[in-house]
Amino acid sequence: MELKRNFEADKLGENELNFLKGFAKKCRGDILKMTTLAASGHPGGSMSSIDIYAVLYGFCNVDPKNPLKPERDRIVVSHGHTSPGVYSALGNYGFFDINDAIISFRTAGYPFEGHIEKTVPGVEWDTGNLGQGLSAACGFAISSKLHGYDNHIYCVMGDGEQAKGQIGEARRFAVKYKLNNLTVIVDKNGLQIGGKTADVMPNNIEDNFKADGFYVIKINGHDFNEIYESIKHAHSINSPVAIIADTVMGKGVSFMENQAKYHGAALNVEDCKKALAELGENDNLDEIIDKKKKSFSIKPLPKRNNNFLILKDDGKKILYTREKNTDNRSAFGNALADIANTFKEKNPAYKNIPFAVFDCDLEGSVKTGSFRKAFPDNFFESGIEEHNTAVIAGALSTENILTFFADFGVFGVDETYNQQRLNDINHTNLKVVCTHCGIDVGEDGKTHQCIDYFGLLNSTFGFKVILPADPNQTDRATRYIASHEGNFGLIMGRSIIPVILDENGNAFFGESYEFKYGKMDLIRNGNDVAVISTGNMLPHALKGCEMLKKDGISPMLLNVSCPSDIDIEDLKLAAKTGFIVTIEDHNVKTGVGTAIGSLLAENAVSVKFRKMGARFYSSSGKPEDLYKLAGLSPEDLYGFIKKELNK
Amino acid sequence: MELKRNFEADKLGENELNFLKGFAKKCRGDILKMTTLAASGHPGGSMSSIDIYAVLYGFCNVDPKNPLKPERDRIVVSHGHTSPGVYSALGNYGFFDINDAIISFRTAGYPFEGHIEKTVPGVEWDTGNLGQGLSAACGFAISSKLHGYDNHIYCVMGDGEQAKGQIGEARRFAVKYKLNNLTVIVDKNGLQIGGKTADVMPNNIEDNFKADGFYVIKINGHDFNEIYESIKHAHSINSPVAIIADTVMGKGVSFMENQAKYHGAALNVEDCKKALAELGENDNLDEIIDKKKKSFSIKPLPKRNNNFLILKDDGKKILYTREKNTDNRSAFGNALADIANTFKEKNPAYKNIPFAVFDCDLEGSVKTGSFRKAFPDNFFESGIEEHNTAVIAGALSTENILTFFADFGVFGVDETYNQQRLNDINHTNLKVVCTHCGIDVGEDGKTHQCIDYFGLLNSTFGFKVILPADPNQTDRATRYIASHEGNFGLIMGRSIIPVILDENGNAFFGESYEFKYGKMDLIRNGNDVAVISTGNMLPHALKGCEMLKKDGISPMLLNVSCPSDIDIEDLKLAAKTGFIVTIEDHNVKTGVGTAIGSLLAENAVSVKFRKMGARFYSSSGKPEDLYKLAGLSPEDLYGFIKKELNK
Repeated sequence: MELKRNFEADKLGENELNFLKGFAKKCRGDILKMTTLAASGHPGGSMSSIDIYAVLYGFCNVDPKNPLKPERDRIVVSHGHTSPGVYSALGNYGFFDINDAIISFRTAGYPFEGHIEKTVPGVEWDTGNLGQGLSAACGFAISSKLHGYDNHIYCVMGDGEQAKGQIGEARRFAVKYKLNNLTVIVDKNGLQIGGKTADVMPNNIEDNFKADGFYVIKINGHDFNEIYESIKHAHSINSPVAIIADTVMGKGVSFMENQAKYHGAALNVEDCKKALAELGENDNLDEIIDKKKKSFSIKPLPKRNNNFLILKDDGKKILYTREKNTDNRSAFGNALADIANTFKEKNPAYKNIPFAVFDCDLEGSVKTGSFRKAFPDNFFESGIEEHNTAVIAGALSTENILTFFADFGVFGVDETYNQQRLNDINHTNLKVVCTHCGIDVGEDGKTHQCIDYFGLLNSTFGFKVILPADPNQTDRATRYIASHEGNFGLIMGRSIIPVILDENGNAFFGESYEFKYGKMDLIRNGNDVAVISTGNMLPHALKGCEMLKKDGISPMLLNVSCPSDIDIEDLKLAAKTGFIVTIEDHNVKTGVGTAIGSLLAENAVSVKFRKMGARFYSSSGKPEDLYKLAGLSPEDLYGFIKKELNK
Repeated sequence: MELKRNFEADKLGENELNFLKGFAKKCRGDILKMTTLAASGHPGGSMSSIDIYAVLYGFCNVDPKNPLKPERDRIVVSHGHTSPGVYSALGNYGFFDINDAIISFRTAGYPFEGHIEKTVPGVEWDTGNLGQGLSAACGFAISSKLHGYDNHIYCVMGDGEQAKGQIGEARRFAVKYKLNNLTVIVDKNGLQIGGKTADVMPNNIEDNFKADGFYVIKINGHDFNEIYESIKHAHSINSPVAIIADTVMGKGVSFMENQAKYHGAALNVEDCKKALAELGENDNLDEIIDKKKKSFSIKPLPKRNNNFLILKDDGKKILYTREKNTDNRSAFGNALADIANTFKEKNPAYKNIPFAVFDCDLEGSVKTGSFRKAFPDNFFESGIEEHNTAVIAGALSTENILTFFADFGVFGVDETYNQQRLNDINHTNLKVVCTHCGIDVGEDGKTHQCIDYFGLLNSTFGFKVILPADPNQTDRATRYIASHEGNFGLIMGRSIIPVILDENGNAFFGESYEFKYGKMDLIRNGNDVAVISTGNMLPHALKGCEMLKKDGISPMLLNVSCPSDIDIEDLKLAAKTGFIVTIEDHNVKTGVGTAIGSLLAENAVSVKFRKMGARFYSSSGKPEDLYKLAGLSPEDLYGFIKKELNK
């Protein structure tokens, strides 16, 4: 039947109720077929959540024929292992052919993965690692506020995952930002892999939601009327709402009910047949098993187009001169404010510009204050909630909002690595701006020194690292990431650093400089040794090179600002000197030097090669003193090269 | 005066009260001197916490002359930026010379770092990244239960950090495990860097602690009687207790009180003098500033000895034969149970063996069930709380308890990278066992495939990665990490893999095999190409090599189980073939291949070099199908080498 996708009616009619009963029964059968065919998967939670999915995907403002229409409701499923339930509901509502999902579930080369992925129409966010979904839903709720959509965001969650702290962070964020367009539905079936949730990790879900300021409704999660009416009720509440739905794991098949073992195990064929008989569902198992054994194909799913804001006009570059030394982070902050102001000027029609900047209580340090002042409605202060913030920002970046998350490196990369990895898997368009990277952090000491940003971000496939060397290059790099698609990590230190000059004393990254992604910058030419420096090491490396020059040694000095994509031709140029030394404010084991070393070997470039970088956790102190302790000062570079050249 | 360090008296006497007043005043002066001298640091929170520190370090069972006595109370300070407060209290109580802390605070080469580090006597845990302290305190509280200590664990926290989700995880753990020896004191000064906590991220601290089952007491955090009596009261409560202490940031100096800017900024010299005058403290600023300008030295602090349990007897190896194929994770689980049983047999006096195994709702998958069955009191089930669990396990591992944290790779490494980094900074002795690493995870799909374990763990300085190739090597590697000091990441896939055989058909890692850390295993000798395989790729690589052999190509096959420390001599042996190919179930950019490539370049080993590894996020499917999609199947290896050799 054609359902009215708007929750307008106060109650379900008799027809709708009968439809839902039949629909959920069909879905339960499909959940069982799918998992039995795959011989793996999570039927138990799928069957406890399916009545909720039946109502949500049936009555929300979603369109199976146009699953990406901008003003649609968003349904985020946080317990992504209930993929059989999600696929069954979506397929049976016509988002795709349910038989394609049944036959290809969890099969290599097919889109219906074990944990939901948004390549499947109707899925809004790839989940699976638990505790992440509510944060993504907050991102979509913020998107609606910025775009002025009159829609609703739902997050369906498991009860086991409620142990996870990130959910508390998301709750507090949702309440702070009055996300009254957000409704959580907790599938409380009381079981998880390890047994009863009350035994594995007791958790007072209701009080936790209430303590953080949610309005809580409790229902029977298998009563369609209660599900429907509680959602309708939630729409009328002017705050985020949590519906806690008591459910039964394995609901609908007598021998599966309340059995924790069916959390993550499929029925064998015989039991599946028994279950289908009990449900009264069509048992075509033998037929599809047979079909699956042969080579089969499914209808291709429509490609999900990215919904990214990529700036066409990145403003007018700001030039820093020798007299105007500053830190890179201020240059970032200035560029950010300029980019946003430029957009506002050229697009006066926008009430809210489609920008968002996220902060975790470090606005003054990461220099997003000018942006905040000019665009307070586009600035989101999340406090000490890095995990939640990283995911919110990631989700929002896929909603045609240019999104920056600015934080210290230890928080924006180290603490939130997995959130960034999951963002990357979700094809986000996130600009992660990390200040206070490297030993350069100085007095805050080792716990605050992010000397692994490259080792980590380079362990994803999508994030590109950009390491600007001075305020001028930072300005250009900021504009570059704002006007180019994809995930970037813009990495900076903390210190004020001198504007890099060319040999004539003019700004190297000055008026005529254009940021070319992937190319090294030839700061000084020379032929005895090539020093390859990264980011804020450049002024120190330059100093070391000047000392060498005074001794009659001719060093080439190269700057790598784009270590994720090193140009082998640049390396071959460096190799002409016969000796390459890399120097970086990063763990020497997993830094740019190691990537370069491996490239040299892969390309059989024959050259003497040495790496300089951090070899132990540093401590508190002035950066120049810490560099000395780490063997990374200009004097160390000078001495090392002299020694290696026997000069 | 000599304080009775036991909280025996019901109330403070007049003498004690007067002492504390004077003591805290002196500390406030020292906080200001220290930060003004360093021209950085966090005086505001130090002054709101100092009255709490004065009582805690004064009346708890800690001994300035013997700061590591095993049965001492543990005081964990979670808001580690209040280091000036902690150092002032400890120094003035005689743990070290307070003047040494004042003059060297935040100076390179000295131990008094900007965030507290346990190289300073009296400090129990390095903090600074917020929200971690309560987890460490839970670890110490578990230690007391296992060792049978009659002591108390305190965790002092800030209010801004309460936004962080990990604290909720720690609360739930503390309540589940009835840690009635744990008392939290929240310094609620209402301010953080960004202003009022109620503006930055509103948080109902009291209700949050209550919702998770803590007993809550509210006090005035500047009233010594209330502080003392609430702690005394907490001792009588049979559950974890939270004392929420209302305080004033900058307390004690009129112009600093309730000013958020003093969260993270020192007074200038002039203002510091004003403040000292107001406090009535000795103004020797000019003198110490002058002294600091000259070269100065401080008395060396005593070395903090590690308190690690390193097994002397690692049991009797279990042998797996061709007929006894299993997965590596089961071999780990069997070895773990055997090691513990061996210890129990040989040390019957122990009521609780000094072992701990931590699980995050994956016991069945990570195969710690046999251990749990045999030693239920040594097994800790934390549910979906990976961040908290990683820190608890880290802290416990420094308490003479052999501690394992077993989880899927995406949780034990990716999700908790920063917690492991902070464990490493804390010199823990943690055995992180990660199963389900690599594309080998199969059907669970890309969100669950940890293909970055090496890129991440190698970005720390302490964690050593061990990648066993088959059940036999897993058995030996498990015993190795149990009997050797330091942090290890034992990395395994998911699949059942065949026992690796030598050319005579006997188990390669059999009876006579001994695990030698750092050496590669020469699985097959050959001279046309050297294939270097890691971990669970070995059976696949072996198959590929056998195919090559049939074609008349003679491949050498090496297994790297210890990629953190590759032996260059092994590489030189491989290079003799003229062609090295690495193959691994890991992101090719940051895997073992890259480390090997860089080593080849650094050592000027001239050899053709190629890397095979994951080049994109995989999907759901059977591992062998996914390997084919990723170009990592035996056929791919065979084809690639044939092509490269033009044969």
